[in-house]
Amino acid sequence: MKAITSRDNPLYKRLKALAGSTHQQRKSGQALLEGFHLASAYLDVAGEPETCVVTDEAMRHAEAQAIVGRIDPSRVATLPAALFGQVSNVVNGVGLLFVVPKLAPTLPERIETTCVVLDGVQDAGNVGSILRSAAAAGVKHVFCGPGTAYAWSSKVLRSGMGAHFLLDVHEDIEPRTLVERLAVPVAITDSHADAALYDCDLSGPVAWVFGNEGAGVSLAWREAVTYRLTIPQPGGMESLNVAAAAAICLFEQCRQRRG
Amino acid sequence: MKAITSRDNPLYKRLKALAGSTHQQRKSGQALLEGFHLASAYLDVAGEPETCVVTDEAMRHAEAQAIVGRIDPSRVATLPAALFGQVSNVVNGVGLLFVVPKLAPTLPERIETTCVVLDGVQDAGNVGSILRSAAAAGVKHVFCGPGTAYAWSSKVLRSGMGAHFLLDVHEDIEPRTLVERLAVPVAITDSHADAALYDCDLSGPVAWVFGNEGAGVSLAWREAVTYRLTIPQPGGMESLNVAAAAAICLFEQCRQRRG
Repeated sequence: MKAITSRDNPLYKRLKALAGSTHQQRKSGQALLEGFHLASAYLDVAGEPETCVVTDEAMRHAEAQAIVGRIDPSRVATLPAALFGQVSNVVNGVGLLFVVPKLAPTLPERIETTCVVLDGVQDAGNVGSILRSAAAAGVKHVFCGPGTAYAWSSKVLRSGMGAHFLLDVHEDIEPRTLVERLAVPVAITDSHADAALYDCDLSGPVAWVFGNEGAGVSLAWREAVTYRLTIPQPGGMESLNVAAAAAICLFEQCRQRRG
Repeated sequence: MKAITSRDNPLYKRLKALAGSTHQQRKSGQALLEGFHLASAYLDVAGEPETCVVTDEAMRHAEAQAIVGRIDPSRVATLPAALFGQVSNVVNGVGLLFVVPKLAPTLPERIETTCVVLDGVQDAGNVGSILRSAAAAGVKHVFCGPGTAYAWSSKVLRSGMGAHFLLDVHEDIEPRTLVERLAVPVAITDSHADAALYDCDLSGPVAWVFGNEGAGVSLAWREAVTYRLTIPQPGGMESLNVAAAAAICLFEQCRQRRG
């Protein structure tokens, strides 16, 4: 175990640059996992992190000790709480974070199961919520297209609550690349569609495409669509938050598949 | 119309204090509505704002002119974009905001229709998303209990997308006050419940209680519950984001009521 005591420590400076910039995280292909839940999930799925950073205070707690105990000591650095605060994106965090390479699964040649496509979903909280709903619904593959928030940013990781480790999250996937690999029908929601979600047979696999918060689904995906579905809304609002709509669609499919 | 040109202008100083602090917004009972959509919705439902603040640039656009044309000129102040930027909570905003008193509806004596209770939902994005789903589902009353994010904060207003003006949003409502007025069964979701959401008859009115992101539903509401429901989750995640769960519940009820 190393002890970081100075702001001039090279690892500390790198951490600070990463923590302060989603752009830097995306560019480096690295992610910061903060807290016991994400750290444990990563250890279970991917093994040891590149680096584990932990405060002296956190090391007094059994949960932190158990996590650190699973990591080669050469990969662990301790630091004072005041320094940790500068690299943490969590208010009142537990004082433990991992630096890890993001997981980059291989794009399947042919997709024959239900999957989710994020077509320019730009809000990190929405992306995290949809990843979480997808994992809960038993989806395996999520494909992030152009304009979608970086899935391994601190904010998406936090709102994903570990979904990243149950899913294969594929990033920077162009619609054309994906369309030619899809062996399942494509479904989108559209408030002007004729068919209600509940009237569509969703017992088979579907590629669900969820679009940008403002502009909706892009032209490339509109041209590839099989089912254009509406979520009937008895109230006066004209639309739902995209993560709410995704949850409704994915779980309507789960409901139909139960029977 | 007044023109604000200095940072020392008293209205500008008050605006800046409000914009920078949700606490200040809550304390004053005032809200900032930013953008054409929220401003128009407010004019339709509640009439003129206390003050409309607009940039010189925005006033070149027909949409801003139409909104400003509906307001007594004594309530309108123009200001340069550089000053507006300091009181705006929106990146690349349109340069128009309203200062308004929050709407404070009267608590009904007896609640006989489907309603939503936010029992300590602390994330502003989640509160806004649930308000939006509730409005889309045709719910009228939303009751915010202790620990819930301030519903009229800039962030909740933004993610609510106008739902605030379709709903009666009641704040600072203690569970006891509400329970004695409820003439409808109380439903909560609980991953350890026996009954699946889809197997419960939801064709009648229900009081849906959605709990804190970490701790879930509080004891007071657990003691008042009629239906304890689980959302079956075929994947490995143990829980959904609260706004996703709320959307699934509210729209499962809409689905059952269609029939």
